[in-house]
Amino acid sequence: MEHGGDLLSYEGYYDGKLVDYSSNINPLGSPKGLEKVIMNGFKDLESYPDVKYRKLKKSVGKYLNCKAENTILGNGAVELIDNFTLLANRVLVCTPSFSEYEQRALIHDKELIRIPYNEDFTVNLKAIKDAIQQGDMLILGNPNNPTGLRIEMEELILIYTIVKKFGGFLLIDEAFFEFCPIDYDSIELFKQTDYKNLGIIRAATKFFALPGIRLGYGCTSLDMVEKIEEIQLPWNINTLAEIAGRYIFQYKEYIKESKRYIDQERKYLLKGLSNISGIKPYFTNSNFILIKLLNWNEEYIFNYFLNRGIVIRKCSSFKGLDDNFIRIAIKDRNGNNRLIKIFKELEESK
Amino acid sequence: MEHGGDLLSYEGYYDGKLVDYSSNINPLGSPKGLEKVIMNGFKDLESYPDVKYRKLKKSVGKYLNCKAENTILGNGAVELIDNFTLLANRVLVCTPSFSEYEQRALIHDKELIRIPYNEDFTVNLKAIKDAIQQGDMLILGNPNNPTGLRIEMEELILIYTIVKKFGGFLLIDEAFFEFCPIDYDSIELFKQTDYKNLGIIRAATKFFALPGIRLGYGCTSLDMVEKIEEIQLPWNINTLAEIAGRYIFQYKEYIKESKRYIDQERKYLLKGLSNISGIKPYFTNSNFILIKLLNWNEEYIFNYFLNRGIVIRKCSSFKGLDDNFIRIAIKDRNGNNRLIKIFKELEESK
Repeated sequence: MEHGGDLLSYEGYYDGKLVDYSSNINPLGSPKGLEKVIMNGFKDLESYPDVKYRKLKKSVGKYLNCKAENTILGNGAVELIDNFTLLANRVLVCTPSFSEYEQRALIHDKELIRIPYNEDFTVNLKAIKDAIQQGDMLILGNPNNPTGLRIEMEELILIYTIVKKFGGFLLIDEAFFEFCPIDYDSIELFKQTDYKNLGIIRAATKFFALPGIRLGYGCTSLDMVEKIEEIQLPWNINTLAEIAGRYIFQYKEYIKESKRYIDQERKYLLKGLSNISGIKPYFTNSNFILIKLLNWNEEYIFNYFLNRGIVIRKCSSFKGLDDNFIRIAIKDRNGNNRLIKIFKELEESK
Repeated sequence: MEHGGDLLSYEGYYDGKLVDYSSNINPLGSPKGLEKVIMNGFKDLESYPDVKYRKLKKSVGKYLNCKAENTILGNGAVELIDNFTLLANRVLVCTPSFSEYEQRALIHDKELIRIPYNEDFTVNLKAIKDAIQQGDMLILGNPNNPTGLRIEMEELILIYTIVKKFGGFLLIDEAFFEFCPIDYDSIELFKQTDYKNLGIIRAATKFFALPGIRLGYGCTSLDMVEKIEEIQLPWNINTLAEIAGRYIFQYKEYIKESKRYIDQERKYLLKGLSNISGIKPYFTNSNFILIKLLNWNEEYIFNYFLNRGIVIRKCSSFKGLDDNFIRIAIKDRNGNNRLIKIFKELEESK
């Protein structure tokens, strides 16, 4: 298994500071003022966190616009994925997608069904309909990693209807939700269902630029909340992560500005890359771009960028992709220009 | 299931600030200078932690005096307990002990065998010998919670020999290790075995007074390290916990002073309580004391202390204890005097 952000493994291959384009973090950095908030919370480390995380659940509920009772918390979104997986019978995963969907299923000895996305990376509805059975959990990234595509609203409703009809459970991983241009909010969309047979996961990791804080959260039905909290490790959230959560979720300006900025840079970088021959960048609703390499393999491109101080994400470790794919993060204007420049050099080097 | 430290559940029952005697934290507080170290690490929150935690494992190895390759890390010791449990066939638990031993076994659908401690809370060796089979994991608290007793060195060697002989695995939970008067160090003791069929778990929670940081660690065989890291959640340790770990483990003076202080206060409090009729405090090697109530039940005593601003731990939720037991933490001199004073009032109120 492989993950982005593992810069330490490549230290020594480049004479200088490596820049990480292999993990996808908000280029504006973490919300201003958080440093002080965390410092003020230092003394709280000497007590156990509230084992029920009452205050944090209230903040999350307010931020997600759902009831605090419907919220769940994880040591990163990946712990919640693990929790839902443990409670499922079989696990249906669409490929390519985040490797931990499969990994957690395997670890908990769950039967795993792989359903490839269509060629344009939209969901293969028919294949899901054919496969799904009572007690199965279908996991979908929305937007999906590494493809970057968001599921259309009508399609998501249709998927949910099918999954529910067959007695399955739909887990929507929205770790990149806030980066999407707003058209619908799944938590709002499914409110009237009381999240029956449905879980929606989000995270502070990417959008709030806090991968080190380990704070995932989500929303599901009351009976599922009970089941998850029953199996979770006690005190799974670090006290400073709890304090950070309660601060960042109410920081409306930061959230608004980050969305605007990412939208602008996504358009800029997609346009810049579209002019380069030899690569095919896929349309994205997130803050990363999947790129098909037409003239090289991932290894060649990885080293080409590494020699220039940049770590990108090779994609052959994603089931369903071969070694002709890479993924890159959308950064600030300078970062994006740097990327475009290197791709241009590459194009000319042919 | 119930845990100590849940003060929020009792707010409103007392007109003032509640003091927690239900969880067992070093009364000297966290190591001096840690606040600054954490602050300096704030910016690191914006990158993923090293997914292999190379630096932290090195620090832990140095602190435990074992190879970094033999170390494992958890989001609190409880995550490591969970990991070991997932890898076991059946789970053998001695009662009374930390409720999560049973809880994690049940969650992972493992057959659970309960072996009561002897009446003096020493290990029932014969019962273990009779029960243990190939692939079983025996978990022992050392010192054990809530009894406070440490296993004698010769006995621990004997237990390990038996467990290994029958192809079992011995997991020693030493979350309270540093509070013990030093006589032997199990990591040193079992060094020549390369920790085959053996895991030893410790934690920053209690001794370093950092329950909010969530940092458990331990030592086991190389093949078990590999298995555990294979099933663990990626990035399970918060970046600030990682930074804290690297600082606290090398702080020799704090460690020495804490040991001396706890030893002194343990003797003081045990002596103070021994003069009170109606209660039987058990000898302890840790920073908490199990008390048998001879004239009252736990509910009465819990409320008696709550009315005086103190939260103690009721013990009937521990399998193997009834409602005639409570557990209290050893605190600083003022705190211990406060406790003795209330017990004296209680004695006189009879």
